[in-house]
Amino acid sequence: MSTTLSLDQLPVREELRGKSPYGAPQLDVPVRLNTNENPYPLPEPLVARIAERVAEAARDLNRYPDRDAVELRTELARYLTRTGGHPVAFEQVWAANGSNEVLQQLLQAFGGPGRTALGFEPSYSMHSLIARGTNTGWISGPRREDFTVDVEAAREAIAEHRPDVVFITSPNNPTGTAVDRETILALHDAAQAVKPAMVVVDEAYVEFSHGASLLPLLEGRPHLVVSRTMSKAFGAAGLRLGYLAADPAVVDALQLVRLPYHLSAVNQATALAALEHTDTLLGYVDRLKAERDRVVTELRALGLDVTDSDANFVQFGRFDGPGGQHAVWQRLLDHGVLVRDNGVPGRLRVSTGTPEENTAFLEAVREVVADGLMSKEQV
Amino acid sequence: MSTTLSLDQLPVREELRGKSPYGAPQLDVPVRLNTNENPYPLPEPLVARIAERVAEAARDLNRYPDRDAVELRTELARYLTRTGGHPVAFEQVWAANGSNEVLQQLLQAFGGPGRTALGFEPSYSMHSLIARGTNTGWISGPRREDFTVDVEAAREAIAEHRPDVVFITSPNNPTGTAVDRETILALHDAAQAVKPAMVVVDEAYVEFSHGASLLPLLEGRPHLVVSRTMSKAFGAAGLRLGYLAADPAVVDALQLVRLPYHLSAVNQATALAALEHTDTLLGYVDRLKAERDRVVTELRALGLDVTDSDANFVQFGRFDGPGGQHAVWQRLLDHGVLVRDNGVPGRLRVSTGTPEENTAFLEAVREVVADGLMSKEQV
Repeated sequence: MSTTLSLDQLPVREELRGKSPYGAPQLDVPVRLNTNENPYPLPEPLVARIAERVAEAARDLNRYPDRDAVELRTELARYLTRTGGHPVAFEQVWAANGSNEVLQQLLQAFGGPGRTALGFEPSYSMHSLIARGTNTGWISGPRREDFTVDVEAAREAIAEHRPDVVFITSPNNPTGTAVDRETILALHDAAQAVKPAMVVVDEAYVEFSHGASLLPLLEGRPHLVVSRTMSKAFGAAGLRLGYLAADPAVVDALQLVRLPYHLSAVNQATALAALEHTDTLLGYVDRLKAERDRVVTELRALGLDVTDSDANFVQFGRFDGPGGQHAVWQRLLDHGVLVRDNGVPGRLRVSTGTPEENTAFLEAVREVVADGLMSKEQV
Repeated sequence: MSTTLSLDQLPVREELRGKSPYGAPQLDVPVRLNTNENPYPLPEPLVARIAERVAEAARDLNRYPDRDAVELRTELARYLTRTGGHPVAFEQVWAANGSNEVLQQLLQAFGGPGRTALGFEPSYSMHSLIARGTNTGWISGPRREDFTVDVEAAREAIAEHRPDVVFITSPNNPTGTAVDRETILALHDAAQAVKPAMVVVDEAYVEFSHGASLLPLLEGRPHLVVSRTMSKAFGAAGLRLGYLAADPAVVDALQLVRLPYHLSAVNQATALAALEHTDTLLGYVDRLKAERDRVVTELRALGLDVTDSDANFVQFGRFDGPGGQHAVWQRLLDHGVLVRDNGVPGRLRVSTGTPEENTAFLEAVREVVADGLMSKEQV
């Protein structure tokens, strides 16, 4: 069939015209450190266990999957209870195809037309894209120059814009720093002071943090939601398994907007197998945290400005010379190292890879620094 | 954590208040013929192949999956080309987690706030629910008393309501009858006469039909979309793999609203394995069509009013006695047979099961008929 039509000739919604699909460039280079993937493949015993559990599920594949994913939510609750410092019950947990779908369901239930969501930018760019996809108004809240959240400025933004949903990413992506407990509480209370707003803490990277999860704050705060993913700490970006913990009433609300049977039986089986291997996978997390700290230290030793990181990636700069950070992104790519330009002026983001990958990255940075592609104040 | 809150105490959207989640009752009975599942489990060689392909995918699970699902869409296009009577290219195919997600993406791109979708009811109830979930206005279009679409009445409804999206389910669920090619063309043209509306033909059950797919109609009609699923003909309801064929520009539009990496690597691997076994699975479809025809014949021999079926289910009635169709539903359940009450007055829907299941169902109906639980005109 010949393509004679352009997208804009179709009756797509006005706000989609001229837009491009989300997604990092997928390039074939030796060292890929651009999408915060876990560099460690799943261990072979886990691969075998996945095959086993999926085969078991496949024998019943002619039937619809468990619509409520009870076994999976029970195991996720057990994991959160064990690692989060506070008991979490099955009824408090909800899972979907990636935390993106979890967040989409939250905005379908609590955002939508005539409502707004506020996030402190730069942050995970899917928050605003999912807002657009659910016709929720988007408000870009402020951050300090060092990318931390200024409680006073944040309070003012909340009072002014009266958002229905507030997103707080902790650790923040792409900048890397976690938000402390006191700030979360202050923003939660500020949001409640205006109207009964939902406060969503996106903890996609929390397992890599120096501090604790915010799960214990859920008690007595029915408008607080903590979202998580198996993509990073569980090394399972290909599985697309996101989840959240919140008041059971929040889970009830999401069941009104979720597509029935949204989680396939094979996804559920694979996630359950991975949860059986939690200890091994968290061992990789420890290795990655040590490597992340090494990358931070060595970048700073090179005279670079590095944002404090609680995640499996590091934001570094500043690159204010000709071509800005994108010129440096291209130079690193010329050295076979793919990092991410998230559009933060003068900064780039590098995912933590294996020790060898990180060393290759640091070597490439050293050469770029030697070539003088940085701002004058720094070199 | 104790549940002290009810859903309505949360700031959920007004239109969700008082609603219940979608889903058929999940009851543990000997003969389950209520959700149009394929009664044949996947053959063991396919189960083994799924385990093999999933293990292969699991070795790379730390990486994000192919965002564009190129291999899967290529194989789906090959399947459609082989069985649909018209060449379909990879660029024309899009896949998602169940046809529900395909339809949701269509309404996100072409429906939404300030726009409307029209379907001819009774039909697949998720169409209106997905419209609600995407804030698309819903218009219930008319059917004749025999549940076929009246072209003249349909044209009038389209002219009056000027919908942005028109759904046509063929074969229709829950009534069973396919819509003929001439009707589709007439409705498509009627919808275009008013504004550039999208026309979505939901062919979830088309492999069970006596007639041909409407895929050949796509040529030269960029506003026409044909949606499909692997849940029924491929016996893979647990896999949640829906797809569509349309103009490549429609696929481009959906990529603006799809969540990135929406299809997990394990779902893609499982679907690819199933597509390798297409011939075996279509053999089960032939058996089910023969059984479906037997059920229709035997129900009619009992004096029941049976709607023509092109699907793997049969609508039968009428049950206008005390308690209506729901009393008969309960009586069949008392006999260990679970069918579906879709809320169509005086009618029930039974999925086609194995020969043994269908015989058990027919036996139960015979007893209910003997008990006189039918309308006076019939017995």
